[in-house]
Amino acid sequence: MRVFTEKMSAEKLDDRTSERLHRRILEISKIGRTENEGAKRMGYSEAESQAKSKVIEWMADIGMHVRKDGAGNVFGTYKGADDSKVFMAGSHIDTVPDGGHFDGAAGVLTALEIVTLWHEASYRPKYDFEVVIFSDEEGSRFSSGLTGSRAFMGMIEEAELDKYRDPFGQTFDEVIGNIGSNREQFLNAEGPAKQIAMYAEIHIEQAKQLEEKNLPVGIVSGIAGATRTKVTFHGVAGHAGSTPMTERKDALVKASEFISTLPEIAKSVSPTAVATVGKMTVSPGGVNVIPGQVELVVDARDIDEAHQSKLIQAVADHAHDIVKDSDITVDTDLTTRILPIPIDSEIIDSMEASFKRHDLLPIHLPSGAGHDAMSVGTQFPVAMLFVRSIGGISHSPEEFTHIEDLTQAVKVLKDFFENQ
Amino acid sequence: MRVFTEKMSAEKLDDRTSERLHRRILEISKIGRTENEGAKRMGYSEAESQAKSKVIEWMADIGMHVRKDGAGNVFGTYKGADDSKVFMAGSHIDTVPDGGHFDGAAGVLTALEIVTLWHEASYRPKYDFEVVIFSDEEGSRFSSGLTGSRAFMGMIEEAELDKYRDPFGQTFDEVIGNIGSNREQFLNAEGPAKQIAMYAEIHIEQAKQLEEKNLPVGIVSGIAGATRTKVTFHGVAGHAGSTPMTERKDALVKASEFISTLPEIAKSVSPTAVATVGKMTVSPGGVNVIPGQVELVVDARDIDEAHQSKLIQAVADHAHDIVKDSDITVDTDLTTRILPIPIDSEIIDSMEASFKRHDLLPIHLPSGAGHDAMSVGTQFPVAMLFVRSIGGISHSPEEFTHIEDLTQAVKVLKDFFENQ
Repeated sequence: MRVFTEKMSAEKLDDRTSERLHRRILEISKIGRTENEGAKRMGYSEAESQAKSKVIEWMADIGMHVRKDGAGNVFGTYKGADDSKVFMAGSHIDTVPDGGHFDGAAGVLTALEIVTLWHEASYRPKYDFEVVIFSDEEGSRFSSGLTGSRAFMGMIEEAELDKYRDPFGQTFDEVIGNIGSNREQFLNAEGPAKQIAMYAEIHIEQAKQLEEKNLPVGIVSGIAGATRTKVTFHGVAGHAGSTPMTERKDALVKASEFISTLPEIAKSVSPTAVATVGKMTVSPGGVNVIPGQVELVVDARDIDEAHQSKLIQAVADHAHDIVKDSDITVDTDLTTRILPIPIDSEIIDSMEASFKRHDLLPIHLPSGAGHDAMSVGTQFPVAMLFVRSIGGISHSPEEFTHIEDLTQAVKVLKDFFENQ
Repeated sequence: MRVFTEKMSAEKLDDRTSERLHRRILEISKIGRTENEGAKRMGYSEAESQAKSKVIEWMADIGMHVRKDGAGNVFGTYKGADDSKVFMAGSHIDTVPDGGHFDGAAGVLTALEIVTLWHEASYRPKYDFEVVIFSDEEGSRFSSGLTGSRAFMGMIEEAELDKYRDPFGQTFDEVIGNIGSNREQFLNAEGPAKQIAMYAEIHIEQAKQLEEKNLPVGIVSGIAGATRTKVTFHGVAGHAGSTPMTERKDALVKASEFISTLPEIAKSVSPTAVATVGKMTVSPGGVNVIPGQVELVVDARDIDEAHQSKLIQAVADHAHDIVKDSDITVDTDLTTRILPIPIDSEIIDSMEASFKRHDLLPIHLPSGAGHDAMSVGTQFPVAMLFVRSIGGISHSPEEFTHIEDLTQAVKVLKDFFENQ
């Protein structure tokens, strides 16, 4: 396994932007570095704060006005020609417990790089341009997710906070107190004071489509909304030795029939639909006991709301179809549904034009994972770019993206904002 | 749920044997009775000792000579016409932690009842007749099984004892010390001093074949040997959102294909073959992570050695066939193989004759579960009778067998021994 520092030292740096991104990613990577060269910057940790402070320094260096809101989100403003609306770009700087150095940080540092280039060229964008660092995107603190961006968009109810406990047993109030805020300020986090004319986020792909097509950057065509359906198969437990095959009511055999045919169900709904069983509980769980009950969760996603609805229904129908004419019964329970965020076709067209001006093939990719753009996208237009991710690996110290690919993303997104 | 005492008080008792069995089962059931009217008599516990003492009292009442060996097995001898060989019958008196009142106890008390009837009639069997109580058949003490009968047959290696830890953290030496024995005496447990001309065991069926055919007793045609094959499917873990269906190497989808088609594999080998997956581990186990690895254990059994071999091979072949032409790989590892114990055809013929003399239909049943007869059967001829088990339920407080059915088994087995 080639470690992060070796990979970074082998990077090709053929322009100023590559050189600066390289240096800054390395510098941020030192904050919360783990023994195996991964990153550990939990949301609302000292390491996340230090990384934010480092970026704030760089913002201040080029005269950006910096402020924080009650959720710890950082906003660095670069003056535009018109202050009636804002452009916004960024991502997060926290990581999963044993994560890599590109998921999140790449989005923040590329957004900052765009401003840095404008600053050097004394260029003013159409509107004020804000570089944002959203807090606790990974949700490792409270087993939630998109914490900062949801607070910013007023999407968190107070009742949710009461349920929060961090891995150290701390309440929400204790944690938010540690960053010098409190519950009230969190719930009244900045919010978009002005209309956001466009939010854009650069993120590593976390899949291998760009790598397989040998392309550095892709246009996100929509952000999938995750749904979770709990499916419980009920049979009858029995002795694995004394119960003949013909007399069994084996919940696991039926559940397995369901899981093994689930990929076909997803594929039948749409090319962007995905369905996964990642966790299941077989009861009673003895090696020599026929399973009486199996509980599993189907994580199903699509980037289109109608397709997502169809997928949810198809998963439930499939479970009921599988047990038809058998002695097994099934319950299905939709426990979570996050609506997908579509990307406007005019935005995609505009992004395609930027790609073409940089001689890049404008490939479209769905985003299956959640990103801060999902929160902002509930009310404002959003754009996203994916950058090639080696081996599709993320949430791992092995995560790696070539600096040159990030530089391509900076050039395209800068062009995109200049042409809004 | 009708509780044990209610069921017992509704029993029909039309002869002396039924009356005595009823009284004795009730009396043993009070030792280690749980709150929900189940039985808790772990092997080598105070409750198991008390139950043995109670049976020893009844043995002494009819002049039987009683001794214990270093494994705590109890032998009560009733003099026969010839002391050059012995007949032996019995079972165990320990239970699983929340078990019932018939599994084991029924075999001991019916064997004792045969002697009691002979004693009343001043009848002497052909050979000395030993009623045996084997210790810790269920194996709840050390997660083993057939502990007493295996020690009796010299089937336990000393190395196995070193690995033993009971649920309270006690070593083997501590546990065996508590019953007044030690490691050396255990390893040199009595052993069959004389040739066992016949060992017979009456046991509840733990399945529903007799109930469905409305028959009280059946002839066990063979005792299946359990085999365990560990099957590990290797895929590649990935993000459940960002990995398209077409790019997945989902270990659980393949494992599920294997499990859902396993019943057909078992059925194709023989009518008595069974195969079960009762336990599986899905890794890494996150709701939103595509499983990279699945480890499961196939418990496969048959009563015929050739069929058992064929079954073991069929399970491994099936695992390899399933992954053929896919990106998933599989390892199979046969970790346990206990040979099945056949029942001699002359013994079955002789038992059939006893059934017919009592106007009973001599149905044949395979035994899928392990019994003490398996240990004795490795060297000596064994016979087994199954008695109807309501709903096929065992290892549960709900376990129930009608006294009248046990009485039928006593009559048949007594006749069988009288005609050897």
